[in-house]
Amino acid sequence: LTADDQPKRSQHHVVVLGDGGWGTAIALTLSNSVEDVRLWSYDPEYAKLMRETRRNPKYLPGVKLPPNLRISSNVEDIMADVDAIFSVIPSQYLRQTLDGLALDVKARVPVVSCSKGVEKRTLALPSDILKQRFPGRDIIIFSGPSHAEEVAHQLPTTVVAAADNIDQAIFVQNLFENTRLRVYTSRDRRGVELGGAVKNVVAIAAGISDGLGFGDNSRAAIVCRGLVEITRLGIALGARRETFSGLSGMGDLITTCTSPHSRNRGVGLRVGKGERLADILRSTEMVAEGVETSRSVHELKHQVGVEMPIAEEVYQVVHEGKNPEEAVSTLMSRAVKEEIEDLI
Amino acid sequence: LTADDQPKRSQHHVVVLGDGGWGTAIALTLSNSVEDVRLWSYDPEYAKLMRETRRNPKYLPGVKLPPNLRISSNVEDIMADVDAIFSVIPSQYLRQTLDGLALDVKARVPVVSCSKGVEKRTLALPSDILKQRFPGRDIIIFSGPSHAEEVAHQLPTTVVAAADNIDQAIFVQNLFENTRLRVYTSRDRRGVELGGAVKNVVAIAAGISDGLGFGDNSRAAIVCRGLVEITRLGIALGARRETFSGLSGMGDLITTCTSPHSRNRGVGLRVGKGERLADILRSTEMVAEGVETSRSVHELKHQVGVEMPIAEEVYQVVHEGKNPEEAVSTLMSRAVKEEIEDLI
Repeated sequence: LTADDQPKRSQHHVVVLGDGGWGTAIALTLSNSVEDVRLWSYDPEYAKLMRETRRNPKYLPGVKLPPNLRISSNVEDIMADVDAIFSVIPSQYLRQTLDGLALDVKARVPVVSCSKGVEKRTLALPSDILKQRFPGRDIIIFSGPSHAEEVAHQLPTTVVAAADNIDQAIFVQNLFENTRLRVYTSRDRRGVELGGAVKNVVAIAAGISDGLGFGDNSRAAIVCRGLVEITRLGIALGARRETFSGLSGMGDLITTCTSPHSRNRGVGLRVGKGERLADILRSTEMVAEGVETSRSVHELKHQVGVEMPIAEEVYQVVHEGKNPEEAVSTLMSRAVKEEIEDLI
Repeated sequence: LTADDQPKRSQHHVVVLGDGGWGTAIALTLSNSVEDVRLWSYDPEYAKLMRETRRNPKYLPGVKLPPNLRISSNVEDIMADVDAIFSVIPSQYLRQTLDGLALDVKARVPVVSCSKGVEKRTLALPSDILKQRFPGRDIIIFSGPSHAEEVAHQLPTTVVAAADNIDQAIFVQNLFENTRLRVYTSRDRRGVELGGAVKNVVAIAAGISDGLGFGDNSRAAIVCRGLVEITRLGIALGARRETFSGLSGMGDLITTCTSPHSRNRGVGLRVGKGERLADILRSTEMVAEGVETSRSVHELKHQVGVEMPIAEEVYQVVHEGKNPEEAVSTLMSRAVKEEIEDLI
């Protein structure tokens, strides 16, 4: 892109922590609307390679990185005068990565959480970890249906920025002005984060259904009733019901449950076809977040005391070796209820 | 199926009006749980063919019709002692078909409306037409993500039966007991009917997006924001917001917007690739309900006074020849708002 195409870059300085596909796509998109964008990589060697080749071949192949995107593994180097930090570190590594970083951030600098998942054992959400590391600061959640490759190729995409203080969400929204990443704002931080965190469990269920040879009707039922379960958990944890009908809830869930690229749906598909989880995990390098999350959700729903029959069957199939067809029979033979009233 | 497989058929007498794929699949499914099921066809010749071959080759090929399913085009013949009527006549033919039938139905017999769409010119929903034809009777709406072929092959499927009087919905639910068609109940008749009626307009938009080469992110955005529009229209017409997050709203919408079999998505796909609507309609015998519905919704939203930007762009592209890329630009350049609050 030439200067003529993008005459209106803002004068902000933005840091993106994490060189995965999603972090790189966010940094790339911001380079169109913000003057100074800095991408931090954990690995000095890999940062050097990206700097020299202007590519991220491992996590976002086929995409050219723009000249105004600075790449570094030296955190002090890139933190000077920063106006916003995007944290895009995988949730299971977030705590240890932050602990190893000498991040000296002014209190006014907003921290935007873009990670999805629930931390093992602690059951913490990414923003909980960020809040512990940056006490007293506003954390903004950034979530929605957004395959990194599509965002990097500037295909139209919508996400939500959620914050307790709506002005912080609007600040993030404005950073993406004139890009093809449309940012809606929300005041329901917890709800927006939970949708992204729990969706992968339902994606495994959708995959199992497909693996058993069921069709569109069954998958739609799993997505809908799965969303009811996520909503129920969310309401119990203080989220707003409406949020789960939005981009970060239903939107992200649809994409994860129908895309042929979803790793979590893929794991379910193979389980549904009769493979054992251990064999599947041995055969792939990819991390299927939902396998861990299904264990966390299993514990969480007991703590909170909500009913999540689909999540429970996924846990049983994935971690307790239950036969997938038997799991479907269990779901099908539950008493059918009134659709709306059983939500709360 | 032998008597041993289905020991618990109820002693009801049920009539299904309409021999299309969905009507036949409903009749077929009911044959597993109800002793006496009667399928009415408009065409005496075709009824004879179905009766003799135990097949419906035109609308539900590859499926064997069970022995306890009676097929007739003689309405008097099949209306004796009936306990429930399922109306599965296409919405654009519903009024004239009912007018031609000498249906003498007792006031206590519930009428279940399974048609989707909005009638041209009058903007009536199928249940409005049924209410005019059967005044003073309860109409139950039966809707959800349910490809007829999958239902006929007994793949797990969920739908909603909605009625002002919940006992009527429970009666319909019980008719399907022990089948693989799981029926949830609802008190929001209008909301359940509207979801199915308007979804095809959004499906055309999803197809256009795919035809333009956009990806999963864009499609998810269209489904989510499209559902916001349907919900907005629904609330203005007296429906409950929550209904649209359920099977008859979001569930049916997902299936229609992602399935390769959806005719409406297919029309959008070809429009997005640059074909003209007239040429598309000339080249196919299939009816794409959404083309008509987009005109009805265009009028309806003006009458009711709600904003439906996606539906409006579909109308502009399909009926006014607007360039699809320009339509996307219009949508992308709208001011972005707070996600939840802009609903009402």
